Parts: sequence; structure tokens; C-alpha cells
Amino acid sequence: MTFARLDTLCRKLESLEHALSILGADEATHMAHGGGGKRAEAMSVLSGLHHAELTAPHVADLIQAAEAESLDTDQAAALRELKRVHANATCLPTAFVERRMQASMRCEQLWRELRPKGDWAGFAPALEAVVELVREEAALRSAATGLGAYDSLMDQYDPGNRTADIDPIFEGLKSFLVDFVPVALDAQAARLAQNPRKETTGPFPITAQEALGRALMARVGFDFEHGSLGVSAHPFCGGVPSDVRMTTRYRTDEFFSSLMGILHETGHAQYEQGLDRDWAHWPLGKARGMTLHESQSLFVEMQLARSPGFWRFALPAVGEHLGAETVALWSEADVLAHVNHVERGFIRVDADEVTYPLHVILRYELEKDLLAGALEVRDIPEAWDAKMRDYLGLSTLDDPANGPMQDVHWPAGAFGYFPSYTLGAMLAAQLFAALKQDLPEVDDLVARGEFEPINAWRRERIWQSGSRLSTPELITAATGSPLDPRIFIAHLENRYGPA
Amino acid sequence: MTFARLDTLCRKLESLEHALSILGADEATHMAHGGGGKRAEAMSVLSGLHHAELTAPHVADLIQAAEAESLDTDQAAALRELKRVHANATCLPTAFVERRMQASMRCEQLWRELRPKGDWAGFAPALEAVVELVREEAALRSAATGLGAYDSLMDQYDPGNRTADIDPIFEGLKSFLVDFVPVALDAQAARLAQNPRKETTGPFPITAQEALGRALMARVGFDFEHGSLGVSAHPFCGGVPSDVRMTTRYRTDEFFSSLMGILHETGHAQYEQGLDRDWAHWPLGKARGMTLHESQSLFVEMQLARSPGFWRFALPAVGEHLGAETVALWSEADVLAHVNHVERGFIRVDADEVTYPLHVILRYELEKDLLAGALEVRDIPEAWDAKMRDYLGLSTLDDPANGPMQDVHWPAGAFGYFPSYTLGAMLAAQLFAALKQDLPEVDDLVARGEFEPINAWRRERIWQSGSRLSTPELITAATGSPLDPRIFIAHLENRYGPA
Repeated sequence: MTFARLDTLCRKLESLEHALSILGADEATHMAHGGGGKRAEAMSVLSGLHHAELTAPHVADLIQAAEAESLDTDQAAALRELKRVHANATCLPTAFVERRMQASMRCEQLWRELRPKGDWAGFAPALEAVVELVREEAALRSAATGLGAYDSLMDQYDPGNRTADIDPIFEGLKSFLVDFVPVALDAQAARLAQNPRKETTGPFPITAQEALGRALMARVGFDFEHGSLGVSAHPFCGGVPSDVRMTTRYRTDEFFSSLMGILHETGHAQYEQGLDRDWAHWPLGKARGMTLHESQSLFVEMQLARSPGFWRFALPAVGEHLGAETVALWSEADVLAHVNHVERGFIRVDADEVTYPLHVILRYELEKDLLAGALEVRDIPEAWDAKMRDYLGLSTLDDPANGPMQDVHWPAGAFGYFPSYTLGAMLAAQLFAALKQDLPEVDDLVARGEFEPINAWRRERIWQSGSRLSTPELITAATGSPLDPRIFIAHLENRYGPA
Repeated sequence: MTFARLDTLCRKLESLEHALSILGADEATHMAHGGGGKRAEAMSVLSGLHHAELTAPHVADLIQAAEAESLDTDQAAALRELKRVHANATCLPTAFVERRMQASMRCEQLWRELRPKGDWAGFAPALEAVVELVREEAALRSAATGLGAYDSLMDQYDPGNRTADIDPIFEGLKSFLVDFVPVALDAQAARLAQNPRKETTGPFPITAQEALGRALMARVGFDFEHGSLGVSAHPFCGGVPSDVRMTTRYRTDEFFSSLMGILHETGHAQYEQGLDRDWAHWPLGKARGMTLHESQSLFVEMQLARSPGFWRFALPAVGEHLGAETVALWSEADVLAHVNHVERGFIRVDADEVTYPLHVILRYELEKDLLAGALEVRDIPEAWDAKMRDYLGLSTLDDPANGPMQDVHWPAGAFGYFPSYTLGAMLAAQLFAALKQDLPEVDDLVARGEFEPINAWRRERIWQSGSRLSTPELITAATGSPLDPRIFIAHLENRYGPA
């Protein structure tokens, strides 16, 4: 049976992906400084082998032959998804892939070097080269898929997501937020006038923070039989579903930032750990794209962990690990005021739940224009600045490090990725609303730290589905309706609006 | 040029080896418990790809064509060594390799399960299957190389080592040791009567032990730019030359065992870190076998770190990290009495420098008989017991866990490996003697903790040579004479004999 031969191929691909994932996680956590050159060589060889296996001439024939076989529903879905992945891998000539990778590696290295100095002039030519190649990539993908240029890129991260659907959603959210940010800031000021914001007083030993993090991870549902928590300069959730590598970083003067980061990554980790193991080696068994992934991390971080109930069981846990005196004077409202603080800022990754989408929409708009040729790299700083002033009332013209040089995505050539952050935030709110319909006592469960019924719902609705459906199909299947910005807006009004 | 095509092949092989080494080190240190199944799959796929690349039909043609090219000395040596590695990989049919690997994996798993219970009867059939296949392997290798059966296996670990040379060396060493062990024990008793053995008094915090270990590693010459120290249940030195992964394990009641282990592995690590980087991707650039490797670890552990001078600078370092009171009452002689304690025992890995070779020679004799069919698996316990009684005066018949079930080598199918431990110990002594000829002030250097002149000598004599010479050739080139057991014997008499 041809399907069985594809199954063998998928096992081989999975093993190469396993090696790449673990080598990547190892590089960020345990690699010796001087080991980078050989590591890059090794990973490039493994990527090349993966690409060669997937795009070998006989694979297209096998897929075609398997399509003629009698397959059950899962097998048919698995074949469909493999065909999509195969098409995405074969539509770019190998020589182009190499040129594209070299350009973005060069640009990313330059970015690491020049960002601290804010040297836009030195950086821009490398970014121009990347944008040129990304335009070429979009044209090639577009020709192969029939999608528009930007859609053909975004489809890599979120199969089925289309600008035609997202544009109106982001337009509406933007107009709401531009008006709502000052409202939320005023409401916050009024609350803080009554009850001033509390600050943590350290030092908080790293071993104690680590134990606290692990305890809450386990409570929320992280499976330590299939994963671990490490340390890295830039926290991530990597590894493989059977061995998820989550990391965080610690400061000793403050513990909330690390803890909220851990809870965020725990959401990602649960998705990976909760995937259908029987299909783990097929694309079908993988997580369905970045919007879904971000919805899971933000579900835990924003919907669960920044809600009042969460701190009813979590504050005592903090006290257990960091000392009762640390939390003796904190009410749940104090914690919420602390972790849900809203502030206009330059940096996306430091942004709060309210202002974050404006950072994303700005990038979405600019990268669509860049791709369409309506914007050139040299004009990015002005365009960025204009939007930052419109959306957040901040000017970035004199400091590119706080403007268009802050993110790794463009130097890395990852165009079409940004929307998933905000689509994920919206979906997290929509998932929580749907969950509450099915499980009206959810707030009580959270307050008691009982997450299994919640996880069972997420497992069935999202995790186990893997890549059986497109992103929009899965959203509808899981929540009963397409992505609906009103739910996220209601969530923001409820959490940040005037009382 | 064909040689350049082989260079590309070697880079690919190196990358796959890199991935396998790092995945192996990761498995022993950071892998989640439930990640083992997928890890085993991934490593098996990578090994398969490595084997397929190395044994692809065109490689033999490339090697042949390159032999006709005009090559410089290094290139010719590199080609010769690649040809050897290629021949070793191609002389076993793929189906046989798989059968052989399955049998030893099964036997090793069973061994892990049954060893704690000492269940020889349950274990023996699996070992029989392994021995059967190893006999078959030896016949295949023998046919391809023209070597004797045992030599053809030993040649995998130490190219050029032959039983014809080793038999008389081991015979002589054995007769010496059987007489010398009681002499050394008497001498030790006399010394201890005058100056009783000191024990350490903990607890010694792990972080402090770790800092001490790192400090001495760096002092001896470990390059932390290209390596790190971790923790694992079974200490090892793995990884790759650009990123050596060394591990140890700690107890808090005692620090010498971990520290001596660290110094031992440091010797291994220095060899890897000191290899010729230009040839790192060719077999030529790799360490020359297990005897040489063990000579480097034992050079540091036995020749340097268990000598009186070492503790002149090391004792104060211990005091710095573990507290001055820890070492205040210790003289160098106390440390030596502690770390050089001789005791007859059942377990090879716990054995001291004097009794260790008898454990090895026993195994060497038994595995030669096993391979030749002069001994069957069912008769091992009696044969083992008879030799243990002859050599060390101990009986193991009632406790196989303390006898033939103690080592992983046979279940893993690693026949021909054991001799390298003792050949390495002998070579370490011979290297130190040769070094002392060239660098008469070596004892003073050690006492001052100045290792760079010593390392420069080792680098030039051993590390940089890679696999340019066979094991016996390299021994002669490095020390001026073939392996000479009298040097090791003199070292033992000097260190352990009566005053």
C-alpha cells in the first residue's frame, strides 16, 4: 500500500525534525559559545536532508498513487495535509531557498549587531535584500497556490488565513483601540488613585522562583513526563511533543514577569503535549499554525492567569515558595493591577494586552505595503513613525532601535507572521467565551486551580484536532462561529474599561 | 577533483555525527523521561542516514579515483583513513547490522532490568544471542580484513592492536600484579598504621563542588569556550570537539570521587578539544581509538592528579571553594593515601589503579575464549569465578551482579573494547615518562599548577596527530618505543610498593 510507504517517509521526516528541534533548543540553552559554527553546519545539513527527502521526485508520485487508494477519513486528511506541505516545499527551487536563507541569515546577524546602536542606515541595505527575495518568494508561492502574494506567505503560518477576512477585523479593532486606549488609561488612573500600585520587593532567589514556576506549570497541566523547564536569554517553547523544552529567564528583584512568561509558554507546551500521538509523525498530527498556537498561550496567560480567580489559588502558592511575607499585603486586586497594567510604549514584546494589537496591526499594514511595492525599505522609518503617532501617540523617528529595528521577524524574512499574535489573542477570548457556555462554572474551577475540565475541553476542541482543519475552519469548529472581534473587544472593555 | 567531493561527503557525515553526539549527550542530561521512544527513533534514522551516505555505491568509486590523484601527505593519510572506515562500514550487510543492533538493544534493556536482581538465568539467553551475532560479525570482518576474529573486533576500537602483541604484555602484567597486590596492601597497611586514613566531613554543597571542579578543569586546560560541565547519572565525556559535553555526579558527604572523575573526563575532553580542527570533518581528524583516549584521561587522573605535586596547588583550591577548614588538617600525603587507596573488590569501575588491570585481563581472556568458541555463555559464571579467585582471591559465584553482570559492554555487543582500559593506563605511564625526559621540571610544573607546557607536549605528540597513525605506530612515535609494560610496573611499584 502506497500510504504505508508515505508513513515511513513521514517517520523519517519526523526524526529529522526531532533532531533539528532538539539541536535548536540545545543551542539556546546548553551549547558552548564556540560550538556555534559546527552547530550551524550540522543543522543546515539536516535541513537539507529533510528537504531532499520531502521533495524527492518519487514523493509526488506516491502522493498521487495514495490518493487513488481507499483511505479512511483520518488517512485522507493526513494525505491532504502532506500534499500541502509537499507543495509548499517543492514550489521554491533549491537554489532560491539557499539564496533566500543566506540573505536572511546575513540580515539577522547584522540586525543583532546594529540594533543596539540603532544603526538603521547600516541595516537597511541588508533588509532591502531580504524584502527583494521575499517578494520573489511570494510570487513563486502565489504562482503555485493561486493565492495573493501576502496570503501565500501568511498561509505558511496559518493555512486558510486571508487578508480579505483579516483586513476588516483589524480595521475595526484598530478604530476601537485608538479610542479605547485613553479610556483604559483614565480608568486605570482612577483605580490607582484609590488603590496605588504595589511593587514587589526582592530579592527572590532563582531556585525558589523556579520551584514556584514548576508548581504552577504542573497545576495548569504541563506534563513533566514529556517536557522540562530550562533557562535561556530569550524564553521559548521548543523541543518536540514527547519532550517539550520550555525556558524562561529570571530576575531577582521581581518575579511576576518570569512567572507570567512561564504561564504563557505553558499554554504553548500544552498544545504540543496534547496533540494526537498516533499522527505525531505526519503533518496532520502537528499544531495548526501560529494563530492557534498563540491562542493557546494567551488562553493560559490572558484568559486564565490574568483573571481574578486565578490568584485565589496562585497567591498562596507564591507565598509557599517565595515566603508568606511576600504576598501577605497583596490582595487579588493588587496582583491584577500589577500584571494588567496598561501603558503606551515603543516595544511590542513589552506591550500590555490593550496596546499590543496596535503594534501588530502597524506591522501587518506595513508588511503588506512592503510586499505590494507600495512601500520601500528606505521609507519604513517615516511610515512607522506616522502610524505610531496615529495609533499610540508616540514618535520613533529619532530612535530606530525602538521602532522598526526592534523585531527579528523582518530580518529573518518572516513576513506574514505578525497577524497571528493578535488573531491568537482574539481567538483566546473567543475560546474562553465558548468554554464558559459549555462549562459555566469555569471561573470557580480556575479559582480552585482545577484545570483538568478546562484542559479536557481544549484537548478535544483544539489539541487533538492537529492539522485536520484550516485555521478558520478550526476556529469555527471549536467555538461555533468564525473569528468575531466583538468578543475580544468585550473582554478588553470588561477588564480595562471604566467600572 | 574527486578529493573535494569526498571532502563534501565528510562534512555531511560530520554533521550527522554532530547531531548524534549532541542528541546522545542531551538524552543523558536533559531529556524528559517520556521522550525516550521518539529519541531512539530519531537517532536510529540519523544512524541509518549516516550509514547510507558512507556506504552509497559511488563512494567506493570516489575513493578509488581519489587514490589516483596527486595528494599531499595529509590528504593521502585522510584518504587512507576514510578508506578504512568505509571498509569497516561496508563489510557488514545492512540486514545483519540491523539484526545485530536489535539483539544488543534487547540484551542491554534486559541487562538494565535484571542486573539489580542478579538474575543471570533470565539474562543469559539474550547474551547468548548477542555472542552468536558477534561471532558472526567477527567472521565477516575477519573475511574482509584478513585479521583474526578477535583482532578484527579490537581493530574497531584501536586500529593496529593485535592479540599477538597484547597477550604477552597482559601475561606479564598479570603475573606481576597477582604477586604485587598483597605487597601493595601490606605496604599500605604499614603506612596507615603510622598515619591513619583521613575521611572527608561534609556536607559539601553541590554548587561549591561544581565551582571547584570547573576551576580545576580550567587550570588543567579544559577550554570552556568549546565545552561545558553538566550532571548525569553516569559521568561521560561526549559531544563534539567544538562543544565537548562533560558530566559528573555529586554526593554531598564526600567530594574526592566527583573531583577525580572530573579530572579523568578532563583528560578525555582535552584530547577532543586539541584535535586538528582543519581535519575535524574527516576520520583523519578524529581521536585515534580508545587506548589513546584512555591514556589521556588516565594521564590527567593517574599521572598528574594522583601525584603528590598536584595537591600542592590543588589543596588550597579545594579550601577556597569548600572552606579552609575542610583542608586545614590535610597534608598532601593524607590526600594521596585517600585517593590512592588500594582494595580488592568485585566491581571494575570501583577498582583502584593496582587491581583494575586484573579486572580487565580477566574480561579480555574470557571474551577471547567466548569468541573462539572455547567458552559458552552458560559457563561464564564459573569461568569468571575461577579467575576472580586466582587473580584477586574473591568469589563471585553466588552474586552475578557483582560478577559477569556488572558491565554493559557484553550486552551492548562491545567485544574487544576492554583491553583499551589497561593499555591506556600503561600508555599514560609511558607518556609521562617520555614527557619527563623532554621536560625534566614537569613535577615542579604540576606542583605549581602550570599545565600549558605539559599540554603543548601532549598536543604535539598525541592530539594533533588525530588518526594519522595506527595505535601502535602512534605509541612509538609519541614515546620513542612500543608499549613497554615495565614503565607501568615501575610506576606502580614506585607509588604503591614498600618505602
